[in-house]
Amino acid sequence: MAIRFSDVLASMKGSDLGPLLALTAQPDIISFAGGLPAPQTFPLKELTEVAIKVREEDGAGAMQYGPSLGFMGLRQAIADRMNRMYQPMGMYKVDPKNIMIVTGSQQGLDITGRVFLNKGDVVVCESPTYLGAIGAFDFEQPNYVEIPTDDDGIIPEELEKVLSTNDKVKFIYVIPNYQNPSGRCMSLERRKKFMEIVTKYEIPVFEDNPYGDLRFEGEEIAPLITMDPKHLVMYSGTFSKTLAPGMRLAWMVLNDELLPKFDLVKGSTDLATPSVTQREAAMYMTNYDFDGHIRENCKLYGHRRDVMCNAIKKYFPSDVKCTYPHGGLFLWVELPEGCNARDLFKYALERKVAYVPGDSFFPQTKKKNYFRLNFSYNDDDVIEEGVKRLADALKAYLADQK
Amino acid sequence: MAIRFSDVLASMKGSDLGPLLALTAQPDIISFAGGLPAPQTFPLKELTEVAIKVREEDGAGAMQYGPSLGFMGLRQAIADRMNRMYQPMGMYKVDPKNIMIVTGSQQGLDITGRVFLNKGDVVVCESPTYLGAIGAFDFEQPNYVEIPTDDDGIIPEELEKVLSTNDKVKFIYVIPNYQNPSGRCMSLERRKKFMEIVTKYEIPVFEDNPYGDLRFEGEEIAPLITMDPKHLVMYSGTFSKTLAPGMRLAWMVLNDELLPKFDLVKGSTDLATPSVTQREAAMYMTNYDFDGHIRENCKLYGHRRDVMCNAIKKYFPSDVKCTYPHGGLFLWVELPEGCNARDLFKYALERKVAYVPGDSFFPQTKKKNYFRLNFSYNDDDVIEEGVKRLADALKAYLADQK
Repeated sequence: MAIRFSDVLASMKGSDLGPLLALTAQPDIISFAGGLPAPQTFPLKELTEVAIKVREEDGAGAMQYGPSLGFMGLRQAIADRMNRMYQPMGMYKVDPKNIMIVTGSQQGLDITGRVFLNKGDVVVCESPTYLGAIGAFDFEQPNYVEIPTDDDGIIPEELEKVLSTNDKVKFIYVIPNYQNPSGRCMSLERRKKFMEIVTKYEIPVFEDNPYGDLRFEGEEIAPLITMDPKHLVMYSGTFSKTLAPGMRLAWMVLNDELLPKFDLVKGSTDLATPSVTQREAAMYMTNYDFDGHIRENCKLYGHRRDVMCNAIKKYFPSDVKCTYPHGGLFLWVELPEGCNARDLFKYALERKVAYVPGDSFFPQTKKKNYFRLNFSYNDDDVIEEGVKRLADALKAYLADQK
Repeated sequence: MAIRFSDVLASMKGSDLGPLLALTAQPDIISFAGGLPAPQTFPLKELTEVAIKVREEDGAGAMQYGPSLGFMGLRQAIADRMNRMYQPMGMYKVDPKNIMIVTGSQQGLDITGRVFLNKGDVVVCESPTYLGAIGAFDFEQPNYVEIPTDDDGIIPEELEKVLSTNDKVKFIYVIPNYQNPSGRCMSLERRKKFMEIVTKYEIPVFEDNPYGDLRFEGEEIAPLITMDPKHLVMYSGTFSKTLAPGMRLAWMVLNDELLPKFDLVKGSTDLATPSVTQREAAMYMTNYDFDGHIRENCKLYGHRRDVMCNAIKKYFPSDVKCTYPHGGLFLWVELPEGCNARDLFKYALERKVAYVPGDSFFPQTKKKNYFRLNFSYNDDDVIEEGVKRLADALKAYLADQK
């Protein structure tokens, strides 16, 4: 059969992570590789109540085609919450008309790539950055410029160097809160400098904020959209980490110029996000204590972060460093220079424990001596046991390096 | 603000149909423009029962991330139904592993475009064809070759002329059953010839079958996938016309070579279709009489087809022709040569009735003297009144042409 694919598909091998992580699906392996919320956080009782009520009160609407930008009741509830949280921090008032509902934030990333990128255009991102974003943008065959980061996030001077010299930059992709994979936060001061530079060069910014609500400690830091006089920020929020990823609901805030372009792509991509799940989420937000629910999630995840960090302190060799995230789902481990987290993976797999090797989070530099751990999904004893196994793997691997 | 879009987005104006059809949203306008199922067909009682049961029995699965190809329970239920219906007609046994769940058949169209098309490649389609498919493929900037059709569908000799001379053809897009917009069926004899030619030239075929289940009269005609020794057919089915479009659930059957390519795009596009709606549909298919439900829908839609066709016979001028569909949601009206359904639209709007002008269904030839009517959505008296208004508009328009 002589199937001829498009050039981009023919050239695309797909991530080699897939086959690697498929190895971790055996039940006796402790996996820190995923990014799954803990299933006990799903508010099933409430989600059953809204499922019934939505079908009773608005069944015809819930089961019918809906507008491509989304169900206005949900867009309104999201705008209300964002305005309540972020207007006091300086955000302009978000109009629900500027909110587009997407089928998970992954869809927002995919649409963004299609709206902006020609082959060879440049996406500026943090080093490291979220591999799912790279996966979406890759379909447009851009180049990436990674901006160096430290514990306070992206380094503004390095960003300005790029923006002042590279005219192929179409947008910047950043995760300011509890970043995936590093778990780090961009500091307030850095955010201000970042937005000054962005505003000067008038470059759109994709602010990916899936983890902002999952704060265990420290002050809340204002998102970039609160410092955005020119409305350059395309803000992305999601229900996947705070309510239920299986509903595939997320949203973007888009200015008046961007909105119709995104809408055009969204409509041709899947017509609209399901009417029924949108109504369920809207009713949940309106009738239940969403913020209280999120606080409960944070308690659980903060505790699990502690369990993992304490176990790491106890068992890991001292020359292996790791971040201490104040929120989110992930922490980031740095091996000594010259080490390779892919090689280590074999040692880990032998000991029935898994993680995501870090090179996939560096689209340009492909650094080898990092890996990502998830602390949200597993129970305490599983985390402790997994970290112990990983420490064994680390020791064996490091000994073999000498 | 200096936003620079991708070339394809910058060049894309979006359909001029949007603003046109927005005019029809006023409540006093009778619209035959949409393609909406009748809301009274939604089995709300059953869909509430499955919503409760899914959350009770598999809440953690329903609310968690799921595999990009879809929930195996749904893929299995779909494969079982297809095998039961089409294996007796000659279809190879479909393995559930070859079924990919998509967020509405629109997503299948979008992914197909991305998998196959480079700029300037050729999509072969029926003349006329579904405008939503064109909308999806357009993002890859292909050219279209329309194959002439008659009451029995695509004319095989014309297809062979194209395939034997044009080596830019990447795939063929067809809707054999109760076609959108024409309401016509491809005859069994034509299907056989079509598949002989396709098999000879080894060109993949997108068989879009959203309406096959909505048969009011006549024998069921075997789908193309039953005549497909080389597995060239990418079959697309949907729950949008038989269960509820607000759930956004559809599927594709893909051979072993295509499946991983489609999976790669699907995963980067929205990770996966919602876990929760997939489980609801699977449970509905397994625990309820889906086929009986569809038979009830057919009674209603067949009746409404009769109401519309009888009113047309009664009121329309005799030089206006229209199809008599044996199933589906649409019928297709042909005006005398030289007429323009866009000009007629103003006359219709003055009389508070609307339809979709036909030129948008001809990606290449843009023929002006057709329009599409939907008969599934409106009640009997509304259909009768709308056709009367449309007949007035037609008479006034035709008189002005003389």
